[in-house]
Amino acid sequence: MIFSQEEFNSRIKKVKDSMNKKGIEILLTTDPSNMNYLTGYDGWSFYVPQGVIVAIDEEQPYWFGRKQDSNGARITTHLKEENIFGYPENLIQSPPLHPYDFVVQMFRDKKWSDKNIGVEMDSYYYTAENHKRLIDNLTNAKFINAHLLINWVRYIKSENEIKYMKDAGILVKAGMQTAYDSIKEGVKQSTVAGKIQNTLIGGNDSTQMGGEYAGLGLILASGKSASASHLTPSEKKFENNEGTIIELGGVKHRYHCALSRTVYIGKPDLKISDTLKATNEGIERALEKTKPGNACHDVAVAFWSVLEKYGLEKESRAGYSIGLGYPPDWGEHTLSIRKNEKTLLEPNVTYHLMCGMWMDTWGLELSESVRVTESGYELLTSVPRDLHIVN
Amino acid sequence: MIFSQEEFNSRIKKVKDSMNKKGIEILLTTDPSNMNYLTGYDGWSFYVPQGVIVAIDEEQPYWFGRKQDSNGARITTHLKEENIFGYPENLIQSPPLHPYDFVVQMFRDKKWSDKNIGVEMDSYYYTAENHKRLIDNLTNAKFINAHLLINWVRYIKSENEIKYMKDAGILVKAGMQTAYDSIKEGVKQSTVAGKIQNTLIGGNDSTQMGGEYAGLGLILASGKSASASHLTPSEKKFENNEGTIIELGGVKHRYHCALSRTVYIGKPDLKISDTLKATNEGIERALEKTKPGNACHDVAVAFWSVLEKYGLEKESRAGYSIGLGYPPDWGEHTLSIRKNEKTLLEPNVTYHLMCGMWMDTWGLELSESVRVTESGYELLTSVPRDLHIVN
Repeated sequence: MIFSQEEFNSRIKKVKDSMNKKGIEILLTTDPSNMNYLTGYDGWSFYVPQGVIVAIDEEQPYWFGRKQDSNGARITTHLKEENIFGYPENLIQSPPLHPYDFVVQMFRDKKWSDKNIGVEMDSYYYTAENHKRLIDNLTNAKFINAHLLINWVRYIKSENEIKYMKDAGILVKAGMQTAYDSIKEGVKQSTVAGKIQNTLIGGNDSTQMGGEYAGLGLILASGKSASASHLTPSEKKFENNEGTIIELGGVKHRYHCALSRTVYIGKPDLKISDTLKATNEGIERALEKTKPGNACHDVAVAFWSVLEKYGLEKESRAGYSIGLGYPPDWGEHTLSIRKNEKTLLEPNVTYHLMCGMWMDTWGLELSESVRVTESGYELLTSVPRDLHIVN
Repeated sequence: MIFSQEEFNSRIKKVKDSMNKKGIEILLTTDPSNMNYLTGYDGWSFYVPQGVIVAIDEEQPYWFGRKQDSNGARITTHLKEENIFGYPENLIQSPPLHPYDFVVQMFRDKKWSDKNIGVEMDSYYYTAENHKRLIDNLTNAKFINAHLLINWVRYIKSENEIKYMKDAGILVKAGMQTAYDSIKEGVKQSTVAGKIQNTLIGGNDSTQMGGEYAGLGLILASGKSASASHLTPSEKKFENNEGTIIELGGVKHRYHCALSRTVYIGKPDLKISDTLKATNEGIERALEKTKPGNACHDVAVAFWSVLEKYGLEKESRAGYSIGLGYPPDWGEHTLSIRKNEKTLLEPNVTYHLMCGMWMDTWGLELSESVRVTESGYELLTSVPRDLHIVN
């Protein structure tokens, strides 16, 4: 088992405490990360409706999903057989029929249809149609927005979670080394991307373990394309005198360690090397402010004070909580590193200090995955923050 | 350019024809596949709200997204500068603020707030919250469910789209060969998965090209785990006398060719080899019925008639439309191969004939990506459909 039953029980207890505070009797989550967090369920089945339901007065959550995926719930969770609900195949992509017709009936059968029902209004895979089917049919229920309720329970990591994130750190370090070793003038981006994935997923001698697919896809873009934050590798060849941004995630048991670096082929112009140095100085100041009791605001002020000193501008936030994730994201949607954000750092909070500088016609990236310790911070992987130069 | 401006214009014209039929003046899509189809936009930015809007009386669509991603729209689309709307960073994951506050204002500024607005109620990334922000604030608009409107325009592929799917077929064939070459007793699943991704994305001598990340993750599961349809590779080692299901996607310019096969280490018992033979016979009968004018029902009846002959049961559908895709899916959500589905096959319709047989404690998979031709069918890749045996 990846986590003990005690750890799952503790998670469910904390979620129930939050439900109580919000007056929620039945909580429905569709975010695959939250589903995994509460039950261990793990499968690439989130392209069809599925969810986990917590009833405040019942010990175990319920899983529902497509019938052909219910064996996946039997294999990856310890839910009792009677808590696994597979809906029939005729509801799949067959409008006007819909899997939420089944969910509505499940709520009725369980006598939940007049309860206070928490739904994650803005979660991945909770579509407008899902919600409409519930509210149109469960007219005696009271619906309460429980978006991020479970995410905030995930805010502080357990020792086991930290352990898996450090394993992910070993994988991402090896992945970045593969990038460094394979980026050369005339080589295709796709060739490098394939090798990076081989390292991140297959592992190598330096990792002594394999990894998994990441919540966020591999970002790799060169030259002008590096001015955009989320372009992905193509068959374009690496060119001399071009910078390349790379953002990778190592993953162990769905826990992530993200890392961004910038590679330059040739002799970098001052614009990119100076900006990278300033960004790194900002990261150092931000890390110094990373300790329990400080707010995200404090970290942000420290980072931007350096940018301001050098006359640099960056509109986007400089980081976000990271941990458990499934596509499309590895961010946990709780803290963000930006000014005026009052969220407090606590021991075993983990975040991705992500300092992308996306300019008009070029860009650079530098980031660290960070754990807040009892007195400060710890990096979850160790790769020098220099501009990596390929000659 | 991956597609000509004429091809984009033709797509937009067909979408506007459908909008006219449904009385839709403004169409909002959030499905990354539909966004790409109408504009070419390509980036892993769908983890934050973004969309493409078609106004019935305007030539070009609009793109909106996070400001730091708007350079991605400038680079990957030919949209005019004034059709690219980047929303400010303070709206990102900062409730009660929300990116759809910006979208609401955009609708007001454009004088669309009293129009007939089409929204894809059940599309990926169109959350209940997105919809609520629109309907609560644009109270003079009439909202019309336009779910699948664009998907049905995508139903028949152009020659260029077919070309990219055949390129994807070259990649997936090489990827499956890598699986066959690397699966051995005692090897970790993750090691094999890394090598497969290296081939699918990086290409090799046999492909002479690289590929891209797939809309559906790599499915690989052995033994009892093969009884579930969507489990992903772990560090588990391959064992003797175990079957492994593998489902892969080759991808070129976001167009997919999917392929599933089953590998057995050792001497397979009759249960698996006989079931595979029967499934293959079903595939052959289904392919014979794949031609213009036949309905999905006809293909399904042909497939299930073989299963019935052998006393086999399969509840899940035997296929679905495939083509353009982003995580979490490569299916296009139009046709499904199942009984009583009346959708007609037409030339250049493409579908994944996916015959997974997920039993109580074991499973097998066998599939083909298929193009409907003028008179019959064509496979998009060529890999023998035998049970692949590793000794």
